[in-house]
Amino acid sequence: MTSDPLTYKRAGVNIDAADKALASARSAIRATFTPGVVSDVGLFGGLFDMERAGVGGEILVASADGVGTKLDVAKRAGIHITVGRDLVQHCINDILCQGARPLFFLDYVGTGVLEPNVVADLIRGCALACKDHGLALLGGETAEMPGLYARGDFDLVGFIVGSVRRDRMLDGSRVKPGQKLIGLGSDGLHTNGYSLARLVAFEQLGLALDARPKALGGRTLQDALLAPHRCYLDPLWPLLEAGRIAGIAHITGGGLPGNVNRILKNADARIDLGAWDVPGLFRMLVEEGGVPAAEAYRAFNMGVGIVLAVEAADAEPIRAQLAAAGETAFHLGEVVAGSGRVRLEGRPVGTGPAQVEPGPARG
Amino acid sequence: MTSDPLTYKRAGVNIDAADKALASARSAIRATFTPGVVSDVGLFGGLFDMERAGVGGEILVASADGVGTKLDVAKRAGIHITVGRDLVQHCINDILCQGARPLFFLDYVGTGVLEPNVVADLIRGCALACKDHGLALLGGETAEMPGLYARGDFDLVGFIVGSVRRDRMLDGSRVKPGQKLIGLGSDGLHTNGYSLARLVAFEQLGLALDARPKALGGRTLQDALLAPHRCYLDPLWPLLEAGRIAGIAHITGGGLPGNVNRILKNADARIDLGAWDVPGLFRMLVEEGGVPAAEAYRAFNMGVGIVLAVEAADAEPIRAQLAAAGETAFHLGEVVAGSGRVRLEGRPVGTGPAQVEPGPARG
Repeated sequence: MTSDPLTYKRAGVNIDAADKALASARSAIRATFTPGVVSDVGLFGGLFDMERAGVGGEILVASADGVGTKLDVAKRAGIHITVGRDLVQHCINDILCQGARPLFFLDYVGTGVLEPNVVADLIRGCALACKDHGLALLGGETAEMPGLYARGDFDLVGFIVGSVRRDRMLDGSRVKPGQKLIGLGSDGLHTNGYSLARLVAFEQLGLALDARPKALGGRTLQDALLAPHRCYLDPLWPLLEAGRIAGIAHITGGGLPGNVNRILKNADARIDLGAWDVPGLFRMLVEEGGVPAAEAYRAFNMGVGIVLAVEAADAEPIRAQLAAAGETAFHLGEVVAGSGRVRLEGRPVGTGPAQVEPGPARG
Repeated sequence: MTSDPLTYKRAGVNIDAADKALASARSAIRATFTPGVVSDVGLFGGLFDMERAGVGGEILVASADGVGTKLDVAKRAGIHITVGRDLVQHCINDILCQGARPLFFLDYVGTGVLEPNVVADLIRGCALACKDHGLALLGGETAEMPGLYARGDFDLVGFIVGSVRRDRMLDGSRVKPGQKLIGLGSDGLHTNGYSLARLVAFEQLGLALDARPKALGGRTLQDALLAPHRCYLDPLWPLLEAGRIAGIAHITGGGLPGNVNRILKNADARIDLGAWDVPGLFRMLVEEGGVPAAEAYRAFNMGVGIVLAVEAADAEPIRAQLAAAGETAFHLGEVVAGSGRVRLEGRPVGTGPAQVEPGPARG
């Protein structure tokens, strides 16, 4: 036995550092508390009153997600405040697909060695985005796990709960042949495809974070890769309240073919690959990196952040309304009779055919 | 540029492996679906109807948590099915502290290289525990993040939502001087203190997982360290429904002093360190490892899994009822006038005083 006492700190767990991170993020957390929040920071579970939030009797919608290896780019850049926003906005879009408005969010930060400033920035980033979109950061957990994560490494996970009126719930059953598909532009990769994008940009093309390749039109690679996941709550909410949307697919891991299929029950989707301009970042990664089209359209959103199914007669009015609200909105294709297949038609960016068969997914 | 095309798989992300893991866990997930679940696996957000679950109008209680470095022990032992149960039962206890019954759970698995069998076992473990305790495994996310986690490493995170009747909500305000504290025995370390325990057991004491040290009374170290986090829902629910409990503290990270304080508003807790027999596992780690008492009582639960505050006259009837239900139940101390301090009185296990001042915590 050594004379040095065995302490939690010597085992690699620094409770004081965790306390410090939390203390520093506390005011940002409290600033998100909406009228529905009944509890203060520090209880074992966060309390939320749906009646006080004005959503009593609604159906709950919940989702869990991470930021993926966009975290690696954030780490390389030393910028930890934006990935929290990515996570919150990703989660909001996910439950928006069921027609829900967000009520509250919980975060989880797992680290190898807890650096209070980094953890505080991660939590603050979540809090700022929650505040912007009117949901409460109701709770969270920070875990220091020496050995499980390498020094400097961490993971950030989010959990969201929202609610939807019974008669406005979207579960794919309203998507029917004859309806049109509208696409809304993404702000870059959002939070998917970063492992492939990093391989192409950093290793294949040998680009540094401060490089300004022509394809990015003056922006640095860092700015393009860290652009926050776009949130579609504000532009879509008035349309959802008016019952004008039959289905929404958030284009995340799996791309267009692996997500649009999630709103198809007894129908196919025909997507015209020429319907939108694939942004320079994607063109660069795919064309200069030599990524086959089938891989590209599965790993990346290719410039389409979300897809709506709407009645044919309402398609152009909705597109125009979304464009007026500041979205890049375009007619993407249509819903046709079928069995749940997403048919990518026209000429893709990248080599070979774009068509792939997707697998299952979870909420 | 190489002639080998750049694919997502070459970048270290294997969507097929994720699909395989999910397909294998799907029936276990579906088996947890309670009447409240409106959606099937595969939507962007899971749908839950509180009215159909018979809890319409109740207050929501939510919590996020991980398993900590108990995951490292599970990995060493090659047993991945029990940590999911640990996580679910930990989360249930957390919201039980607010008086809530669980409604649904979501899991997150982050990995470096996705091994379908391991991920399927992690999710199945969550599903089995959800099924046992009547909550739905409503959704989840599996993320393969090459570079962020080392090969073979993973993290497992859980999110729980439950609900409590307005008039039964526990937030610490009912805990008053004059009440008694009852402790319920833990089943080992539960999910806290593993970094210190691993340092002591594996490095300081040089024990192997199949060692049977005398202190464990014939059990292997592996069995003692992987004993599932005990769930207190079933024994406590009848008492909660009858309004006989004023406060509940779940003894997790921070130990007795860092958790009992979370239910004290304008009172202190006096805890008699001689009130229970500290189990052999803790004695071995602390005494043979030379862990100072102040560290031990902050890192470990020391044999107390949960603490109840109850009216003095009801303390012995409640203790007896819990003992009859199979719990190790003991009179632990009392609530006295004060300012939120947890006073550890009597002789601790380990060297030096047990008293420490805890920091803040989150739900």
